[in-house]
Amino acid sequence: MAKGKVCLAYSGGLDTSCILQYLLDEGYEVIAFMADVGQEEDFEAAKEKALKIGASQCYIEDLRQEFIEELCYPAIACNAIYESVYLLGTSLARPVIARAQIAVAQKEGCFAVSHGCTGKGNDQVRFELAFYALQPSIKVIAPWRDPVFYNRFKGRNDLLDYASEKKIPVTSTKSKPWSMDENLAHCSYEAGILEDPNTTAPEDMWKLTVDPTKAPNEPEDFTIHFEKGLPVKLECKDGDKTEPLDLFLTANTIARRHGVGRVDIVENRFIGLKSRGCYETPGLSMLRSAHIDLEGLTMDREIRALRDQFVTFAYAKILYNGLYFSPEREFLETSITASQKSVNGAVRCRAYKGMFSVIGRWSDTEKLYDESESSMDEIGDFAPSDTTGFISVNAIRLKKYGKAKEEKGESLVTKH
Amino acid sequence: MAKGKVCLAYSGGLDTSCILQYLLDEGYEVIAFMADVGQEEDFEAAKEKALKIGASQCYIEDLRQEFIEELCYPAIACNAIYESVYLLGTSLARPVIARAQIAVAQKEGCFAVSHGCTGKGNDQVRFELAFYALQPSIKVIAPWRDPVFYNRFKGRNDLLDYASEKKIPVTSTKSKPWSMDENLAHCSYEAGILEDPNTTAPEDMWKLTVDPTKAPNEPEDFTIHFEKGLPVKLECKDGDKTEPLDLFLTANTIARRHGVGRVDIVENRFIGLKSRGCYETPGLSMLRSAHIDLEGLTMDREIRALRDQFVTFAYAKILYNGLYFSPEREFLETSITASQKSVNGAVRCRAYKGMFSVIGRWSDTEKLYDESESSMDEIGDFAPSDTTGFISVNAIRLKKYGKAKEEKGESLVTKH
Amino acid sequence: MAKGKVCLAYSGGLDTSCILQYLLDEGYEVIAFMADVGQEEDFEAAKEKALKIGASQCYIEDLRQEFIEELCYPAIACNAIYESVYLLGTSLARPVIARAQIAVAQKEGCFAVSHGCTGKGNDQVRFELAFYALQPSIKVIAPWRDPVFYNRFKGRNDLLDYASEKKIPVTSTKSKPWSMDENLAHCSYEAGILEDPNTTAPEDMWKLTVDPTKAPNEPEDFTIHFEKGLPVKLECKDGDKTEPLDLFLTANTIARRHGVGRVDIVENRFIGLKSRGCYETPGLSMLRSAHIDLEGLTMDREIRALRDQFVTFAYAKILYNGLYFSPEREFLETSITASQKSVNGAVRCRAYKGMFSVIGRWSDTEKLYDESESSMDEIGDFAPSDTTGFISVNAIRLKKYGKAKEEKGESLVTKH
Amino acid sequence: MAKGKVCLAYSGGLDTSCILQYLLDEGYEVIAFMADVGQEEDFEAAKEKALKIGASQCYIEDLRQEFIEELCYPAIACNAIYESVYLLGTSLARPVIARAQIAVAQKEGCFAVSHGCTGKGNDQVRFELAFYALQPSIKVIAPWRDPVFYNRFKGRNDLLDYASEKKIPVTSTKSKPWSMDENLAHCSYEAGILEDPNTTAPEDMWKLTVDPTKAPNEPEDFTIHFEKGLPVKLECKDGDKTEPLDLFLTANTIARRHGVGRVDIVENRFIGLKSRGCYETPGLSMLRSAHIDLEGLTMDREIRALRDQFVTFAYAKILYNGLYFSPEREFLETSITASQKSVNGAVRCRAYKGMFSVIGRWSDTEKLYDESESSMDEIGDFAPSDTTGFISVNAIRLKKYGKAKEEKGESLVTKH
Repeated sequence: MAKGKVCLAYSGGLDTSCILQYLLDEGYEVIAFMADVGQEEDFEAAKEKALKIGASQCYIEDLRQEFIEELCYPAIACNAIYESVYLLGTSLARPVIARAQIAVAQKEGCFAVSHGCTGKGNDQVRFELAFYALQPSIKVIAPWRDPVFYNRFKGRNDLLDYASEKKIPVTSTKSKPWSMDENLAHCSYEAGILEDPNTTAPEDMWKLTVDPTKAPNEPEDFTIHFEKGLPVKLECKDGDKTEPLDLFLTANTIARRHGVGRVDIVENRFIGLKSRGCYETPGLSMLRSAHIDLEGLTMDREIRALRDQFVTFAYAKILYNGLYFSPEREFLETSITASQKSVNGAVRCRAYKGMFSVIGRWSDTEKLYDESESSMDEIGDFAPSDTTGFISVNAIRLKKYGKAKEEKGESLVTKH
Repeated sequence: MAKGKVCLAYSGGLDTSCILQYLLDEGYEVIAFMADVGQEEDFEAAKEKALKIGASQCYIEDLRQEFIEELCYPAIACNAIYESVYLLGTSLARPVIARAQIAVAQKEGCFAVSHGCTGKGNDQVRFELAFYALQPSIKVIAPWRDPVFYNRFKGRNDLLDYASEKKIPVTSTKSKPWSMDENLAHCSYEAGILEDPNTTAPEDMWKLTVDPTKAPNEPEDFTIHFEKGLPVKLECKDGDKTEPLDLFLTANTIARRHGVGRVDIVENRFIGLKSRGCYETPGLSMLRSAHIDLEGLTMDREIRALRDQFVTFAYAKILYNGLYFSPEREFLETSITASQKSVNGAVRCRAYKGMFSVIGRWSDTEKLYDESESSMDEIGDFAPSDTTGFISVNAIRLKKYGKAKEEKGESLVTKH
Repeated sequence: MAKGKVCLAYSGGLDTSCILQYLLDEGYEVIAFMADVGQEEDFEAAKEKALKIGASQCYIEDLRQEFIEELCYPAIACNAIYESVYLLGTSLARPVIARAQIAVAQKEGCFAVSHGCTGKGNDQVRFELAFYALQPSIKVIAPWRDPVFYNRFKGRNDLLDYASEKKIPVTSTKSKPWSMDENLAHCSYEAGILEDPNTTAPEDMWKLTVDPTKAPNEPEDFTIHFEKGLPVKLECKDGDKTEPLDLFLTANTIARRHGVGRVDIVENRFIGLKSRGCYETPGLSMLRSAHIDLEGLTMDREIRALRDQFVTFAYAKILYNGLYFSPEREFLETSITASQKSVNGAVRCRAYKGMFSVIGRWSDTEKLYDESESSMDEIGDFAPSDTTGFISVNAIRLKKYGKAKEEKGESLVTKH
Repeated sequence: MAKGKVCLAYSGGLDTSCILQYLLDEGYEVIAFMADVGQEEDFEAAKEKALKIGASQCYIEDLRQEFIEELCYPAIACNAIYESVYLLGTSLARPVIARAQIAVAQKEGCFAVSHGCTGKGNDQVRFELAFYALQPSIKVIAPWRDPVFYNRFKGRNDLLDYASEKKIPVTSTKSKPWSMDENLAHCSYEAGILEDPNTTAPEDMWKLTVDPTKAPNEPEDFTIHFEKGLPVKLECKDGDKTEPLDLFLTANTIARRHGVGRVDIVENRFIGLKSRGCYETPGLSMLRSAHIDLEGLTMDREIRALRDQFVTFAYAKILYNGLYFSPEREFLETSITASQKSVNGAVRCRAYKGMFSVIGRWSDTEKLYDESESSMDEIGDFAPSDTTGFISVNAIRLKKYGKAKEEKGESLVTKH
């Protein structure tokens, strides 16, 4: 058409259906794009709907494998976490979705991409920063940031009226009083009734995991094997899983049936607003915790400290803020790989009524842990008297501190 | 006596009873010192035993209040954690014990202090670095690092023989196949059968908390209030608790009956060995998690990031390594206080079968979270179109990155 | 007037004179505001010009004292530096200017403030972030970011035509082929011919400092005294200076006559562009270097390391990005103060042909340095044999590393 | 001999000559080892002396090339600096010396290595930690930490008496009132009269560089080219130098004749003592400064910030403390390499009377700097109006801060 082709991230829902129609109204040709990152969705029905509304094409791209291997696995390898609690489930999916959308846009010769993200959230930033890095010349059409659009569609009713007018089919299911985002790694819930941070998430909100009080009365044990910090085998009652997607999905299955992986937080968005979110991250939270445990056994203390303080922290922030396709992420990923050379071994795990715990671990190849040496009962290759010198030298600085306090009459011995 | 007075940290057990006798044999006068940091112990029986063996005096010091207020509370305020898992229960008690022991030594005119710590652990370092800062001129007698002593007493049987010879009363209770350290904040288990990191901790080892599978079938809800980052009220079915010791003990009670706070890790000791430890930290783990949650609602993003990356990390390392009485701890504590000015509010919590979760939170005074502003449904005081500029400017650097990649023929769009 | 009052940051130059006129044309009443931060300028002539063009009022605020005490001194106390080279001279002045401008705006009942900063630089960001923190309800008029304005005035000639049309007096001095910003702390040069990063700055560009090759052939020595990390006395051939402004100006005088403090860099702006700048920072660069030296003598190693890695780094970035009025700056300033308690003493300095050097230092009160103890020739209060234990314990981890390498056949002894 | 072979780091001076004799007296066979790291020394005379005293062999190993390539170059690539001032000249040489000494020890079948380092310094720690990592089973004989030895030889006179008794030739040159350590990268001066931190280093102490006041009256210009952060060509009046050793020596020559690279500091040793040191680091200081400059032009802002805050800081500390052969150094070196991919280009430099300055730089391949885009005079591919949105979004958090201040009556507008 006259104004060129646009590749629209389409979900089949009311918002992106109206945006599709709107773009057509505006004179664009629209290529619909759907990413399968493991969310529960009737992709074929959505495709049919997109075509019915007027999309020239509708692509459904299965990104599950690359999502696990390129995003979730490095996140496990560096124990990525944002603000001590959030495992970045949504953030992790954005890069593969943006990349596939740009690939479709390039294949179809689109001059622009479009999405249905709101103007206050993180996702618009994540998608668009990825778009611009992936194809610096791309244009972005973000209707929810366009005053013409958002002043016209001020609420759900305006969209429903427009859908009715344009004969866009609307599913009769009542909208839930919150918004959701689902993928293989997690499901998020925010907005609506959750905006009051003191409103407890209703039990029927949680979609992926069973209510812990209704989980089995028997704990379930399983073993996760890692090589160079990445999961390579999950041994459980359902057998051994080694393929990344299979392994990850099985970890999800175990965690979901035991109610593992729910969190409820108020977090700080990139744009400076605070936001309340509830997240279910079943398998990923177990894999990450098991990985942390194995690092205790197999990783050098100082590499771990440097990695914790700088790589983990920075990697999580970068992902959260949508800077995956960036020089700094490339730089950090080199460090993640370098840090994981020795993280080889297995962790025995337990899931039970919402709780994940580690009950043992071993490594056949890494020997940093030495039972006899650490033993309090044996002397081994180590002279306890050496520690006297170690303490004396470490005390040199502290004695000066103590003396200075004494001279100033500020005894450290007096209680506060 | 000729060789002067020594203040010995005494526990009533076989080791320190033999050390007491040994010091007397060596010609020292011994002042026994016992610290009550909340461990379950028959202090009076131990005192009687110390005096019977030959101590000139035996001090029992109740340090519970200062342990909670001066150590546990700042640890909560900065979310202290070592190597992502360990809440520092043992490390936190050492400074108050060392300080009280030095105070007794000073009162009694002792030229030296002594302890029964082994020569491979962290505790010897923690105690002695504290001793030297508190009183730079103090001498330390550490028998388990003295070759004369440790070559003579090579195992428990040598100690039992010595006790028998010296008529030191020995309790008939069979020694447990691990060693323990208990205080108000936690109980630790290490050594013995736990030295194999793949041996699952036996169920009867855990002392403080109930087995989660035997915990009540009903969740228990309660509310923790904070002011300037410190717990000030615990509302629960047992009433409202506001005194620090009372509040902390009640948090323990709730956590213990629901099996909350068990961890099992391999950690890196200060002296460079790895060590396996199991820890129960019932109340402290809940108070810390609730505190983290409230920071989400009430703390500025950038202060939080700086605090997380530098204060929390450094504070935990300093405490773990026994550097509480140090210039750097004093320095960091100023930052902790400064970071907590706005951490005022309450967190609604739930304990259930080993799991702690947050189900809501509010603050009457802090307004960083603004429901209507964060709302996806309202425009409020914020123009969504502004975000376009925000993204454009953040994209400047990324577009250059993308262009450089294109020029080098390394398309970011191609999958790995 | 109908559209209300605007407080314009006015310099007397062509740009802000045209903006003043433009705002009047647009129907605003304009209050002109000039900040005296020590730049060489005929304030009275500029005031007269502003009033002549049509400003209702023209304020000239002397901010030199607060600029030194509130901004430059804390920067010295934390050794602030951006990207290893830039001493933040421009950034440091912005907060006091923004604050005084808002104070005038409030006094005059202005609904908006305005400035003549370009749309690609750091200064617009620094001023406006400060304005919004100082008075969240303020409006900002930034003509150089307004397409109407910048499309009309595409270059200097358009402005000259407008000035001629509006009868705005224009000084006949030929414009320099770069832009400058001067204050007590520094003078910056950028843009124009300097945009080619390989063009050497012409000798006649440097305004504050003498060409080092033309500086005196004799070095000049002087002594700077610090208390709690702040300069309190400068002893030099011109006498003793103790008042902050006097002391700072004298440091400038010394550095200027010896050509000290020139740098030439390419730096990274907040908005993601790289920019070439030349800076003269005479006194500040000497005061900062002397302060660093004194910290060596008087500051604890670990406080220094924490401060260097976190506080200095973060403080410089915050200032550079214009986040002075922010929670994080308040937070960091607490740490700066806490870190400087012991930084008391004096540094003997030398300036000579562009070079600053330290030739001695002492402290009457701080005793962390102990000549006899550090002496290689004396034993003192320290047993060299203790170091054997210190090394042994530090070697535990490294021996494991060496053994693991040996087992893998990767000898460390072989050269790369 | 009965007690086995020892490889002694031998210098030809009084100390190690006496130690050589002492080891022979003690019944060891001694292999003398001398490392040529570029210090000015008569190696052949020293070898002759070692053999005369009784060494079975004397190895002279030329380590200059590996010293430059393996140590100095990575230090330049990460801008290594300790405590803001010290360029680590001594620390950098230790790893190659220790490695060559262990190689000789292994070749000769020595069970132990020995050195003449004092018991209070950093070098003993650096050498021994390296020895233990390189060969975990090695034994170390450190006479200056052995009470038998240091109680016997309490001062220089005791050594002279011993030398006389044992007929060890002693050079008649009067000992200097300080100790020195020289290599290709630097010369250090400490102890003796320098122990008073307020004693100005005497002019005749400085060995490598000319007194700046006696340096040429004409500045000297030259150009340094880098590839991936490493110097690859030095263009100067003496021609083009590209071989690392040649390039480095030429940089030294230039810096030495212009008096560049002197510093005088009080630093914090690993063992907790403070120490005063004077250092000359001619070529390395210029190469490092030029490298920093080129990073401004060619390196991404965020990689640079991460590298500055973590890699540079940690790398310098690790080197200073003697942890070169460690897991963490290996880990960090991966990051250094990853950070330098784009650091390609050239820097035009000037040396003059102690001062080094940059007068221009360019890169043929890296395009992060874009003259027209950064230009204040051109609009280019960038809309200034975008910055409005950037500022608005960054201001969201700050407006909340300002509002909270207002509500508490703590106006930010009021001066301190």
